[in-house]
Amino acid sequence: MFYHTKKLQYFKPPEKPDAVYAMKIQELIGGTFGEMTVMMQYLFQGWNCRGPAKYRDMLLDVGTEEIGHVEMLATMIAHLLDKAPVTVQEEGARDAVVGAVMGGTNPRDVIMNAAMNPQHAIVSGLGATPSDSVGYPWNGRFIVASGNLLADFRSNLHAESQGRLQAVRLYEMSNDPGVKDTLSFMIARDTMHQNLWLATIEDLESSGLETTPVPSSFPLELEKREFAYQFWNHSEGTESSEGRWAKGKSIDGKGEFQYVANPQPLGPEPQPPQPDPKLHGTPKTQTTQGNGASGGSAVDRTVIRS
Amino acid sequence: MFYHTKKLQYFKPPEKPDAVYAMKIQELIGGTFGEMTVMMQYLFQGWNCRGPAKYRDMLLDVGTEEIGHVEMLATMIAHLLDKAPVTVQEEGARDAVVGAVMGGTNPRDVIMNAAMNPQHAIVSGLGATPSDSVGYPWNGRFIVASGNLLADFRSNLHAESQGRLQAVRLYEMSNDPGVKDTLSFMIARDTMHQNLWLATIEDLESSGLETTPVPSSFPLELEKREFAYQFWNHSEGTESSEGRWAKGKSIDGKGEFQYVANPQPLGPEPQPPQPDPKLHGTPKTQTTQGNGASGGSAVDRTVIRS
Amino acid sequence: MFYHTKKLQYFKPPEKPDAVYAMKIQELIGGTFGEMTVMMQYLFQGWNCRGPAKYRDMLLDVGTEEIGHVEMLATMIAHLLDKAPVTVQEEGARDAVVGAVMGGTNPRDVIMNAAMNPQHAIVSGLGATPSDSVGYPWNGRFIVASGNLLADFRSNLHAESQGRLQAVRLYEMSNDPGVKDTLSFMIARDTMHQNLWLATIEDLESSGLETTPVPSSFPLELEKREFAYQFWNHSEGTESSEGRWAKGKSIDGKGEFQYVANPQPLGPEPQPPQPDPKLHGTPKTQTTQGNGASGGSAVDRTVIRS
Amino acid sequence: MFYHTKKLQYFKPPEKPDAVYAMKIQELIGGTFGEMTVMMQYLFQGWNCRGPAKYRDMLLDVGTEEIGHVEMLATMIAHLLDKAPVTVQEEGARDAVVGAVMGGTNPRDVIMNAAMNPQHAIVSGLGATPSDSVGYPWNGRFIVASGNLLADFRSNLHAESQGRLQAVRLYEMSNDPGVKDTLSFMIARDTMHQNLWLATIEDLESSGLETTPVPSSFPLELEKREFAYQFWNHSEGTESSEGRWAKGKSIDGKGEFQYVANPQPLGPEPQPPQPDPKLHGTPKTQTTQGNGASGGSAVDRTVIRS
Amino acid sequence: MFYHTKKLQYFKPPEKPDAVYAMKIQELIGGTFGEMTVMMQYLFQGWNCRGPAKYRDMLLDVGTEEIGHVEMLATMIAHLLDKAPVTVQEEGARDAVVGAVMGGTNPRDVIMNAAMNPQHAIVSGLGATPSDSVGYPWNGRFIVASGNLLADFRSNLHAESQGRLQAVRLYEMSNDPGVKDTLSFMIARDTMHQNLWLATIEDLESSGLETTPVPSSFPLELEKREFAYQFWNHSEGTESSEGRWAKGKSIDGKGEFQYVANPQPLGPEPQPPQPDPKLHGTPKTQTTQGNGASGGSAVDRTVIRS
Amino acid sequence: MFYHTKKLQYFKPPEKPDAVYAMKIQELIGGTFGEMTVMMQYLFQGWNCRGPAKYRDMLLDVGTEEIGHVEMLATMIAHLLDKAPVTVQEEGARDAVVGAVMGGTNPRDVIMNAAMNPQHAIVSGLGATPSDSVGYPWNGRFIVASGNLLADFRSNLHAESQGRLQAVRLYEMSNDPGVKDTLSFMIARDTMHQNLWLATIEDLESSGLETTPVPSSFPLELEKREFAYQFWNHSEGTESSEGRWAKGKSIDGKGEFQYVANPQPLGPEPQPPQPDPKLHGTPKTQTTQGNGASGGSAVDRTVIRS
Repeated sequence: MFYHTKKLQYFKPPEKPDAVYAMKIQELIGGTFGEMTVMMQYLFQGWNCRGPAKYRDMLLDVGTEEIGHVEMLATMIAHLLDKAPVTVQEEGARDAVVGAVMGGTNPRDVIMNAAMNPQHAIVSGLGATPSDSVGYPWNGRFIVASGNLLADFRSNLHAESQGRLQAVRLYEMSNDPGVKDTLSFMIARDTMHQNLWLATIEDLESSGLETTPVPSSFPLELEKREFAYQFWNHSEGTESSEGRWAKGKSIDGKGEFQYVANPQPLGPEPQPPQPDPKLHGTPKTQTTQGNGASGGSAVDRTVIRS
Repeated sequence: MFYHTKKLQYFKPPEKPDAVYAMKIQELIGGTFGEMTVMMQYLFQGWNCRGPAKYRDMLLDVGTEEIGHVEMLATMIAHLLDKAPVTVQEEGARDAVVGAVMGGTNPRDVIMNAAMNPQHAIVSGLGATPSDSVGYPWNGRFIVASGNLLADFRSNLHAESQGRLQAVRLYEMSNDPGVKDTLSFMIARDTMHQNLWLATIEDLESSGLETTPVPSSFPLELEKREFAYQFWNHSEGTESSEGRWAKGKSIDGKGEFQYVANPQPLGPEPQPPQPDPKLHGTPKTQTTQGNGASGGSAVDRTVIRS
Repeated sequence: MFYHTKKLQYFKPPEKPDAVYAMKIQELIGGTFGEMTVMMQYLFQGWNCRGPAKYRDMLLDVGTEEIGHVEMLATMIAHLLDKAPVTVQEEGARDAVVGAVMGGTNPRDVIMNAAMNPQHAIVSGLGATPSDSVGYPWNGRFIVASGNLLADFRSNLHAESQGRLQAVRLYEMSNDPGVKDTLSFMIARDTMHQNLWLATIEDLESSGLETTPVPSSFPLELEKREFAYQFWNHSEGTESSEGRWAKGKSIDGKGEFQYVANPQPLGPEPQPPQPDPKLHGTPKTQTTQGNGASGGSAVDRTVIRS
Repeated sequence: MFYHTKKLQYFKPPEKPDAVYAMKIQELIGGTFGEMTVMMQYLFQGWNCRGPAKYRDMLLDVGTEEIGHVEMLATMIAHLLDKAPVTVQEEGARDAVVGAVMGGTNPRDVIMNAAMNPQHAIVSGLGATPSDSVGYPWNGRFIVASGNLLADFRSNLHAESQGRLQAVRLYEMSNDPGVKDTLSFMIARDTMHQNLWLATIEDLESSGLETTPVPSSFPLELEKREFAYQFWNHSEGTESSEGRWAKGKSIDGKGEFQYVANPQPLGPEPQPPQPDPKLHGTPKTQTTQGNGASGGSAVDRTVIRS
Repeated sequence: MFYHTKKLQYFKPPEKPDAVYAMKIQELIGGTFGEMTVMMQYLFQGWNCRGPAKYRDMLLDVGTEEIGHVEMLATMIAHLLDKAPVTVQEEGARDAVVGAVMGGTNPRDVIMNAAMNPQHAIVSGLGATPSDSVGYPWNGRFIVASGNLLADFRSNLHAESQGRLQAVRLYEMSNDPGVKDTLSFMIARDTMHQNLWLATIEDLESSGLETTPVPSSFPLELEKREFAYQFWNHSEGTESSEGRWAKGKSIDGKGEFQYVANPQPLGPEPQPPQPDPKLHGTPKTQTTQGNGASGGSAVDRTVIRS
Repeated sequence: MFYHTKKLQYFKPPEKPDAVYAMKIQELIGGTFGEMTVMMQYLFQGWNCRGPAKYRDMLLDVGTEEIGHVEMLATMIAHLLDKAPVTVQEEGARDAVVGAVMGGTNPRDVIMNAAMNPQHAIVSGLGATPSDSVGYPWNGRFIVASGNLLADFRSNLHAESQGRLQAVRLYEMSNDPGVKDTLSFMIARDTMHQNLWLATIEDLESSGLETTPVPSSFPLELEKREFAYQFWNHSEGTESSEGRWAKGKSIDGKGEFQYVANPQPLGPEPQPPQPDPKLHGTPKTQTTQGNGASGGSAVDRTVIRS
């Protein structure tokens, strides 16, 4: 069960409204790696967790924090959309830019009005929406909670990496002190969360519960071990032979990397079986079934029909 | 530019058809972590790569290999759907199970017919589709190519972890020797690819191009450092204080983990600004605008209308 | 900011696992009118609320309660999926039903295995997912927070009506005492929430802030009043004249219902303008542009090309 | 079966083209609460209706009217896109705004060209599309037809409330007399339809077929009545105690509202059962299964494998 | 504007309910090539049509007919779902199949209950939904109305080909006389519609308004003519040289097919430019920017920051 | 299995970056008829093909070529996004246009910054994404591989028609010589591919394997032949009687077109059966079930409940 406190975890309002920036920062709410993603991902991982109690508790702690991050960003967007130039003035629209030079309507408003997310005006009345920066809605396929903690902690590490990268890009794309201050808090939390998931991975691996390759509970002798450390060079040129992955001991410590410069197929040509004629796919050769095209008789066939 | 060779990278056909299993193994083609995901993710990362040539070449090598994995699974599904009981016999349907005991229609066929993916019969004519195991289509939001290689390599590591986990689960869910043999090749390749992305991370970090926290090119003094290593305990109980993430040196080596047992909000209560009345949101207090509800006069307002 | 307590708002575990029912009850988590919808809808409405403080506080209270409802259902699904027959036994699969009669594998397991949501095994490892009962993911377009409280309270009333209806249907579809007990709590909360939104509508309308028609702040004289109370009978037969909507005072008290038995169009035939030839749509009549088809010369045209 | 007449229900063409406004008004065609939604929602409710004939006839009347509303808006958009500046002139693009002041290319065209929906040029050749104002396609999850008429009439009331609100916002965002005239007809029809659904609710409730709480055919004694009228205060502060929903008789007349100021969980801590090890989720404690990580032997396990 | 008549275009009710078949036949309503697709596609093509009046009229005729096809199928589904075994009996569920042999609950009901579309019970109350056979909702990207009539007529021909194929497959998958009779009417209409679109193509091409290649108004000399009739053999083996497309006059009569057995790339290696460092992508070589990883100083950089 | 060569099939870089055009040309990568569609469509058709070897080989040849087209466009977009004005300068943003005239920041950059796809900066770091021109992701429902080659070849012809139309429109919307040169290659390939699919249709029909109506293997006597060549005039006016489709021999040569000027329904009024009361839909008449609304007693009913 959850409780809410009225104050925000952290917040500085923007100095000036900026409707186009409001559209962009939606990426941090409803984008693939936005706060809705980490919030729902950590909550579902916590709810589904059957591992040790400390992991479950930790997942729900961080998930609960992230609900508050959506709240902070929603508040930010409400401020950025303040005084958004959503309506037009009688005479101004058509000659805005020229007029502006003459001292009329602010041309920036014309650009803002044209380029802002139209749903911020029409649908949400200048509020945040559960969508990304192009207006595509957040959806449940953005998250994973697999029940395997190492697989999921790697997912979390990845999400916080993309998340901090995007927050940093948005920091660079603004020159508003309030926006930058609030983002600098969120970026710091992302630093913590990258460290957090690296730490959970270390913690989990040292506990012996999981290790590489995930899932480690699957007996290795059941996979084709001879292909488990080969790099296949599928393109011309061998620049790919220069990396750590091409030679030396494998990272899991259980094999030796091998570079296959000219990989050859090991399997046969596909021979998909001919499907049931009642599905009317095109067969390899003409049969006697059907109408005028094949000239075949349909008589026999209709016998088994009602 | 790409070339195709007719033979499959590896393949053993299933011994027996199994339409329900064909539905399930679609997860490995078009699911969030299926082969279409890794194929498109590595290709787009390669095409967008501005880093060292060895990374670009490597990404396109692996991406090209993954096209062939989709091909293998599509062939597998065509075999599994062979002789799928898509049509019904005259009298059988209603009394199939009872009848079966008496020696009539195979009851398994009735279950198969009811539980298989109907689109395998109606839409694809017993072929694979670009969808997951519940028929939801693969889509472009499943992949990421951010231009930051450490963020992306972590994504790739995560995708191969979920991918191998799912392949192992499907291995366990079958007892067909052909299916198991083919999957044991794919599982081995996933072992390689988990090792590969761990190796690329080691390679990239040792090159000094990227490190934790991602993106490392962002000056740390621009984030609020005082919050960059704190774990906030947002739920009752302190089991979450027992992990590696709650104390000791942070994994990036740049700070010290700190456990905040009773976190308090640092921000104010939100005060979203009142929006433009022309958007007709509900304000804090009644204004004189509008029709009968507010009893207000609309006269002044219509002056500025056409 | 949010806090979490470990205990559930209410819960009785199911007596027996039932993987197919687990698939069905997903509708209450991630369906169009599931708990994720009301949770996100009330939170966003609260965060975006610029109306009186009591509405904002109330919205966030209920939104916070709903997070806990997702938690209850996720726990329920984990129990329902316990011992789900995800894997098959050596010999059993092909002859399960016949075999069952002889005393072998439980035929119900075969049906369960075939008909359960495959992602519950492959993707989530027997945990809940943010999807509905056919596996379609929850998405942000399921919710609305428009800034107009009367519009939104009507949306909430509607969501709780569909939600209680679906919970009742699922109650009828189970005979497990634990499931029925937990659902009977959720159904009671839905009763409260239907009453709640009816009460908020009464509260809001009596405050004079909003009334019918929404948005009431729009001056009625700006709409074509002569069409504001007419029912147009677009189909043959006049059964539709028998209802409250066809005669008498309109519900908003501002007009008189009128039944138009034989409605006629009031507008002209559409005359969409001919588009720019550079977009290569098909025009009304042949022009001299283009290649062999029209026999026209492209010479003049290329003059204005680079 | 349906028939079409060539004339539009109502229409005034816009005075001037406006490609950006064409993008915005798409919300009224293909948005969550656009005309495609009410059209398909009322038609499906009508087709699925098993209630009294007057409801079925009425639903199909209104649904049929709404097809014509999509037609009106599609025609409007074709006019608004007339002469859209989709192509660029030789020299103009780079220096458009500066140039404009000097007397060159119209700078408004540059903004229009950049900010219009690109699919209006590339995909539809200056015609309407079945999408909303950010280009997201209309989809079937936008509608509901539940078979319970009170639940559905509330949905319809809500849809018309959001729909009129959005139409009013778009009215305010234009200063084109043709657009405003056409919208003032549609807004009036939305006034009728809000009154209509309020009237159907009154009609249905007075017939005794349905009442609050929906579905009223579910025996109230089967829900946990003690929680059916409580408001739970999940956040700090008690502003939410000031509303109609916090005290007094419940709106359904069957209970008394009650304000729970400090709600406590009634359920236990979740104890999700340990899943089948063959799904390779992370368990609470280490088992002997698996590879190197756990040091366990896989021997026993492979005994039961083929 | 549209009108509705109460009678169906054609209809025979099914003899027996069949909930699983109801799920399958949803493909013909809301699938990619279902009746909602052709209905919306022809209506939008008609509304957007700027070509000769006969085409516009014809498109709206057929689009209007298709609304009635959705109506027929919705009615069919309501009948098929009659008496669907959505609820379970006290004791029956667990031992249904075994029990059935003993004379108890019908085992077919257990299979039906498990395998039917759960939303047919939970969401629509035994009515049709705007979704396909796996429950995925119809969406606006399924249709096209490009403004180029030849492109669109080819789309229509294709849609009717897939549509008739799917209807035929569903015909084969049923043995209910009512279903088969109704489908045999729809299949005949699809025969007409395939002939119709072939006829419109002939009509349009003979009018000189459009021809191959679409769009024919684009001057051929502006494309690289030397590559306009080459078949590139991208895979090993030359079976693809045996078809009509590999030699002889091209179908448009404007060139000669040519078979390129060993195609070579004509372009350079990609050299994507290095992006702005403020986006924090990984560059080719280390720069002095950033934090500890690169050891670089961030001093200069912060000078230009606020 | 697949191989990659580093060089592009064809490519000329753009002369100048243009971030807004980069957004638009995404339509050719991830749009409904973009290169990802033809690539995946031809590959799946090839993998699922059970027809003659030459068709399978040909499909995989063209599918493999199309992978390289995605690669070309991704490279193009990286160039177009070079130097995209993603960040803002200290003082410039607010007064950009006015300032520009005075000699300050380039106003075009302000427009570009506001109107470009924000995900090109935030998500992909100036790389291509698997999305269309409004940022909607490519998805698997865009393609079809039905197993019936005539249905699929018609789909391919249609895709190449829309594809060439869109490429031509984008050619017209640019004045960059590099963009135009690269597009003129792709447009030529689309010319080939339109000819290709016309040739495959001729080849297939002349082989006797398939003909009109698709699927030709379905015996014509099983469809209602009397309706197989009728054009139904569903709208007022008879302009639609003037086309090739209204009279004369049908295109398949098996019937005679017939124009039905005043079509009448052939079916009855729908009579959907009353659903199970346990689903709580609204019935035709009041029953004794339920709570206070109906005044009925629920006593009998609870007898059969637990």
